[in-house]
Amino acid sequence: MADGSVYVPAKRLTEFMIGALVKMGVPREDAIIVADVLLASDLYGVRSHGIAHLKMYYDRIKAGLQLPVTHWVLVHETPTTAVMDGGNGMGMVAGYHAMKTAIGKARANGLGAVAVRNSSHYGVAGYYTRMAADEGMLGMSLSNAHPSVAPTFGSEPLLGTNPIAISAPSDEAFAFTFDAATSVVPRGRLEVAARNGETIPPGWVIGKDGSFPAESSRLIEEIDRGNAALLPLGGGGEQMGGHKGYGLAAAVEIFSAAFQNGAFLSELHDSDKSGNPQPSRIGHFFLAINIDHFLPQKQFRETTGKILRELRESGKIPGEEKIYTPGEKAYGNEVRVARDGVEIPPAVQKSLQALCDELNAPGLDLEF
Amino acid sequence: MADGSVYVPAKRLTEFMIGALVKMGVPREDAIIVADVLLASDLYGVRSHGIAHLKMYYDRIKAGLQLPVTHWVLVHETPTTAVMDGGNGMGMVAGYHAMKTAIGKARANGLGAVAVRNSSHYGVAGYYTRMAADEGMLGMSLSNAHPSVAPTFGSEPLLGTNPIAISAPSDEAFAFTFDAATSVVPRGRLEVAARNGETIPPGWVIGKDGSFPAESSRLIEEIDRGNAALLPLGGGGEQMGGHKGYGLAAAVEIFSAAFQNGAFLSELHDSDKSGNPQPSRIGHFFLAINIDHFLPQKQFRETTGKILRELRESGKIPGEEKIYTPGEKAYGNEVRVARDGVEIPPAVQKSLQALCDELNAPGLDLEF
Repeated sequence: MADGSVYVPAKRLTEFMIGALVKMGVPREDAIIVADVLLASDLYGVRSHGIAHLKMYYDRIKAGLQLPVTHWVLVHETPTTAVMDGGNGMGMVAGYHAMKTAIGKARANGLGAVAVRNSSHYGVAGYYTRMAADEGMLGMSLSNAHPSVAPTFGSEPLLGTNPIAISAPSDEAFAFTFDAATSVVPRGRLEVAARNGETIPPGWVIGKDGSFPAESSRLIEEIDRGNAALLPLGGGGEQMGGHKGYGLAAAVEIFSAAFQNGAFLSELHDSDKSGNPQPSRIGHFFLAINIDHFLPQKQFRETTGKILRELRESGKIPGEEKIYTPGEKAYGNEVRVARDGVEIPPAVQKSLQALCDELNAPGLDLEF
Repeated sequence: MADGSVYVPAKRLTEFMIGALVKMGVPREDAIIVADVLLASDLYGVRSHGIAHLKMYYDRIKAGLQLPVTHWVLVHETPTTAVMDGGNGMGMVAGYHAMKTAIGKARANGLGAVAVRNSSHYGVAGYYTRMAADEGMLGMSLSNAHPSVAPTFGSEPLLGTNPIAISAPSDEAFAFTFDAATSVVPRGRLEVAARNGETIPPGWVIGKDGSFPAESSRLIEEIDRGNAALLPLGGGGEQMGGHKGYGLAAAVEIFSAAFQNGAFLSELHDSDKSGNPQPSRIGHFFLAINIDHFLPQKQFRETTGKILRELRESGKIPGEEKIYTPGEKAYGNEVRVARDGVEIPPAVQKSLQALCDELNAPGLDLEF
């Protein structure tokens, strides 16, 4: 809880975001989706991807990197599969409709998979998998991203932080949700460290010379200049399994690009080789698995719940009081935020104020 | 290359394994599958899961933990999905037919997924995903396993080393294949360390007291007694992403058990709470994605190949000469073994000799 934070009720924040998005040129029905994805991120506690990102989307729209109107279209379709073109619009709008399409196909035919091309940053990957879990299905969501991560033994940031999200319904108050970058830490974690003047431990980032930088300030800039790179889950080299994180990131890159003949790795830079801005052409992959096609829903939920409970109740190392299960922290945060409102720290207040000024929208006021 | 190793041509080794398996009571057509999975492991360079394991399967059959005849049956089936009961037989036979079923469904309907219950150790996970890649499909294979891995902040070995394997066809000589345990290292790596009298680095294993043991001798026994546990990919705690490896392992547990109302976590011990031996009841999950339902096969293969080549040719840290791509080391090993034969180190020669003696099979001779 940063000093100077304000707490805004979720409903009020959603209205604000929808208003701002409409002002940016996003159609109202799409703005509702984008605001819901951003709010979800704040609810889950992934604050880097929530309202803190709203101005970034505006900056991208202004720079011509993505369009406010998302002309998504299914360019190829079968009863279980589809390829969507995201029309270089809002990634959340493409993502939402792609997962909805996958869920519809899985409802009818057991399984549904949709590959998306020409999309953009789609926010928190776990939003889409929870859509599937809410429909009683297992959901999987993958995306490539801006180059930031070096392959094992490499120094060049080439892979995105390429998230993997998986949700599965349970008999508990929340769905099992795994949602993580395939790097040790996401880019946002470096931004937080830089903001707080913290050093970072060896194994998060690798320098071009093979060293582990400790100093976090300007590290994101150094990565974007190719002078450093995030390390894949497992860290540098192979001793602690860095090749596994790298392999997972590469698998996500293939899922996200190869099913739709799309862009990948260095092609996902914000500017081309001459330095001119270019659309990100990010790709996503969504899978929905209809549990009813395997066994009664109730049995699946019970098994998932029992797995989570056995993990949670198992022996802890001395000094640790709690074993969390995937999705549990996010759920706890949701309950807290529903009660207290979304925390808006001073830096985000400032960026939202700047956004309102730019949009010349006096009606858009969070009363900071 | 251990002193005293012999090199046996792959064909000769396969004949030996089939002969031995038939002697163990495995029907000839099943023995052909089991021998092929074990040989593949030696070809890929995963020698812990190859012929080195043959005697372990015999020991398990003798102990009544699994049956030599695999009465697998599809207990539920739709055009895209199936649930298979593995009949507590040979995991490779169940796995082979389950992936074949998934591939058949994907050929007809775009996607195919098969959950398997009452199975046993199925060997190297990447065997099954390569089956899909050989048919021009993306394959995914997951399995739970004997409890060995502690959740983040936990000390109890509960999760299996729960492998994830993914293969995707490319335009290169080999398919992209990611195949890895979701722990930092597999159990086999500890056996190798113990055999060689090596110490292990902090972060591979956690003791009940929260310490990182360095001494590798008897560590597997300590894990099986619950006094230590393998750590998930990312290591202990959350700083290096240990919660991500844990989350992936938990997702694999759900995939492997929840779709077939199966056993999980502590239920997968070789003995029940009274110490009586019990079948392992391992579960698997197989997914096949028919690329032709998304776009022309050639485009997919080219994109995958380009991703692999860009990774391979990217900047290396000083002192490193090569960036490997997933599947590349296994392919290099295959080429080498096809030329030189499979290396059988002295310890494996001894276990095979003991197996031959027990099977009373004088015709089964590798002429060590």
